[in-house]
Amino acid sequence: MSFVTHLECSATGEHYAADTLHNLSRAGKPLLVRYDLEAARAAVTRDAMDARPTGLWRWRELLPVRRDENVVSLGEVETPLITIPRSSGGNVLVKDEGRLPTGSFKARGLVMAVAMAKELGVRTIAMPTNGNAGAALAAYAARVGIETIVFCPEDTPEVNVREIAAQGARVWRVNGLIDQCGAIVAEGAAAGRWFDFSTLKEPYRIEGKKTMGLELAAQLGWRLPKAIFYPTGGGTGLIGMWKGFAELEALGWIGPERPRMYAVQASGCAPIVRAFEEGVEHAERWEDAHTVAAGIRVPKAVGDFLILRAVRESGGKALGVGDPAILKAVDDCAKKDGLLLCPEGGATLAAYREALRTGEVDEDEEVVLFNCATGLKYPMPEAPWTLDRTQPIDWDRL
Amino acid sequence: MSFVTHLECSATGEHYAADTLHNLSRAGKPLLVRYDLEAARAAVTRDAMDARPTGLWRWRELLPVRRDENVVSLGEVETPLITIPRSSGGNVLVKDEGRLPTGSFKARGLVMAVAMAKELGVRTIAMPTNGNAGAALAAYAARVGIETIVFCPEDTPEVNVREIAAQGARVWRVNGLIDQCGAIVAEGAAAGRWFDFSTLKEPYRIEGKKTMGLELAAQLGWRLPKAIFYPTGGGTGLIGMWKGFAELEALGWIGPERPRMYAVQASGCAPIVRAFEEGVEHAERWEDAHTVAAGIRVPKAVGDFLILRAVRESGGKALGVGDPAILKAVDDCAKKDGLLLCPEGGATLAAYREALRTGEVDEDEEVVLFNCATGLKYPMPEAPWTLDRTQPIDWDRL
Repeated sequence: MSFVTHLECSATGEHYAADTLHNLSRAGKPLLVRYDLEAARAAVTRDAMDARPTGLWRWRELLPVRRDENVVSLGEVETPLITIPRSSGGNVLVKDEGRLPTGSFKARGLVMAVAMAKELGVRTIAMPTNGNAGAALAAYAARVGIETIVFCPEDTPEVNVREIAAQGARVWRVNGLIDQCGAIVAEGAAAGRWFDFSTLKEPYRIEGKKTMGLELAAQLGWRLPKAIFYPTGGGTGLIGMWKGFAELEALGWIGPERPRMYAVQASGCAPIVRAFEEGVEHAERWEDAHTVAAGIRVPKAVGDFLILRAVRESGGKALGVGDPAILKAVDDCAKKDGLLLCPEGGATLAAYREALRTGEVDEDEEVVLFNCATGLKYPMPEAPWTLDRTQPIDWDRL
Repeated sequence: MSFVTHLECSATGEHYAADTLHNLSRAGKPLLVRYDLEAARAAVTRDAMDARPTGLWRWRELLPVRRDENVVSLGEVETPLITIPRSSGGNVLVKDEGRLPTGSFKARGLVMAVAMAKELGVRTIAMPTNGNAGAALAAYAARVGIETIVFCPEDTPEVNVREIAAQGARVWRVNGLIDQCGAIVAEGAAAGRWFDFSTLKEPYRIEGKKTMGLELAAQLGWRLPKAIFYPTGGGTGLIGMWKGFAELEALGWIGPERPRMYAVQASGCAPIVRAFEEGVEHAERWEDAHTVAAGIRVPKAVGDFLILRAVRESGGKALGVGDPAILKAVDDCAKKDGLLLCPEGGATLAAYREALRTGEVDEDEEVVLFNCATGLKYPMPEAPWTLDRTQPIDWDRL
């Protein structure tokens, strides 16, 4: 069912064998999975794909898992596209990734990475996380019986830390940011204690994340929107979608048109924005990172050059937005359109509204924003109103 | 597109006009929506239904909304069926309703009720809630611009109260249980302040909820499971599914076989279980109701006789489970199968495991449990582990 041929260094193009464990390439860069797309094209048609049940595993020919018994699932549904006319002021669809298992898009990457870990015989996994990735890892690893240890910054949302533990992983709060958690994981991996599951340090999360792009094309009747606004931390999803679009074109299922890709970051942690504006290929580590959107508080991304390359090739931009604009976008979308975004999703709406204001996008252009997690995981303002039913009710006050 | 003919009193059979506002019948009982199923049968085939995009609005011919412009949607996806072999010990599928908008099955009922409120010109809605229904109402009402006031017991989960407010409704904590909140809503409705949206007091929530049954039949290839375990508070979903199965049979899409329906309640609030065991048609109010599963803490259900009728006709039972068994089921399912249930979903798993033990169900029988909301909305145990990265790491402790 799978058409994987080999893995390839994203920087040098050097080939690596499939069906064996890898982290980064010898050049220290992410590995990309390559497929025999000619053979895949002969094996499955677009109509056949349309006839399958929706959901992540429909894309089996473009995914790396070889054996059925290694497919793991908690119900990776096709996430819906939701209009938000009143809060966006434009022709916007929100792809609501909060509907996935464990409530975030991290499920896409982790379901694939865990399935491959099972296929390749991994017994113990460790990973740094800002929260949602750890939750997704814990859930899938629990399901297949792989031992898991997760490290997260000490101010990771409490709900994330607890759900990771509830799903059977060991979870440690660390006095540092995610790259410092990643250093602990790397040290333990070097000592042979576990396999390192950090973003882009194993090759398969990106294959799961690319299904966002495949799914979007199928949902829109095998075309793509004019622009995509994507909340960008490690950037796996943006890199993955860009890769997925190329694979769809190679299959002959879409044409050469591409959306403008907008990588959205918080002003308080915007290394990709700075690198984009400076015209450089790699991003420097961002010092003193801070933002309410913890999921995109990633000071240094190992795939920085892949993010920047996709954004530039697409004619898009990297955009930074402030926390007040993020919180205002979340509030407006919930109150006006009934959709509770996560802060990272709110960042994409804030960036879209700013782009509309500056003329970077037109209100009639079809644009897709990614809401990467359910808004329910995040703090909401207090609602302090109480009513004593044993006293006469002041009806006009209700 | 709709084939509604009239509404009918669930107790007396008396007819009421469609396309006008109603609460309970003159007999004080819920109204059921009736359709011209012969005409619907001529209008749509089972194959045509299979070819439509999945999701709640695919069932349009069996739903009450007449005009397209009144359809409201936040992406009501077909909820997945997930195996939980290790924690259930049997042939169990969990229908994970936590994937719906606002994270619970309440979205099914409220999307329909709000669409009909829009169609019938309602300007202001009030409702009592244990939490999730209020959140769903707030979201859909915000989207269509209907003013909303919600009353909830003072110990309603904080996340629910806040999400209701975040989505633009006015929400009041009341020192009482849900039926006492309902009394305030009834009093205000009688004074003409708002329309009463209480469970089964308006006729359309049940039409939305019945899609759980329609969807289940379609997902299983137009057959039904041997048994359904359903967490039962107001019981709208159980009543709705039972009604939906009859409609599917009238269309010729399924046969006369039905699942045994198990109404699951918490031992600390089990009025339906008591009435079932006593062989009576109506349930007395349960005094001093208490359980961790707040969603099924309903001391008195207006549709009690409809729940009991469906359970008895199906050859099922009403079952009570204690809080420790509920919490143990939630914990086991998360740790062994990677699926975080809500407490009410945990109650169905606890009841299933007890039914397996007593021989009420066989481990090979296909059984569907309803997880009515995402487990993320509920308290989880603390995870207190911290690691100081500035000190030497004790690796064996991780």
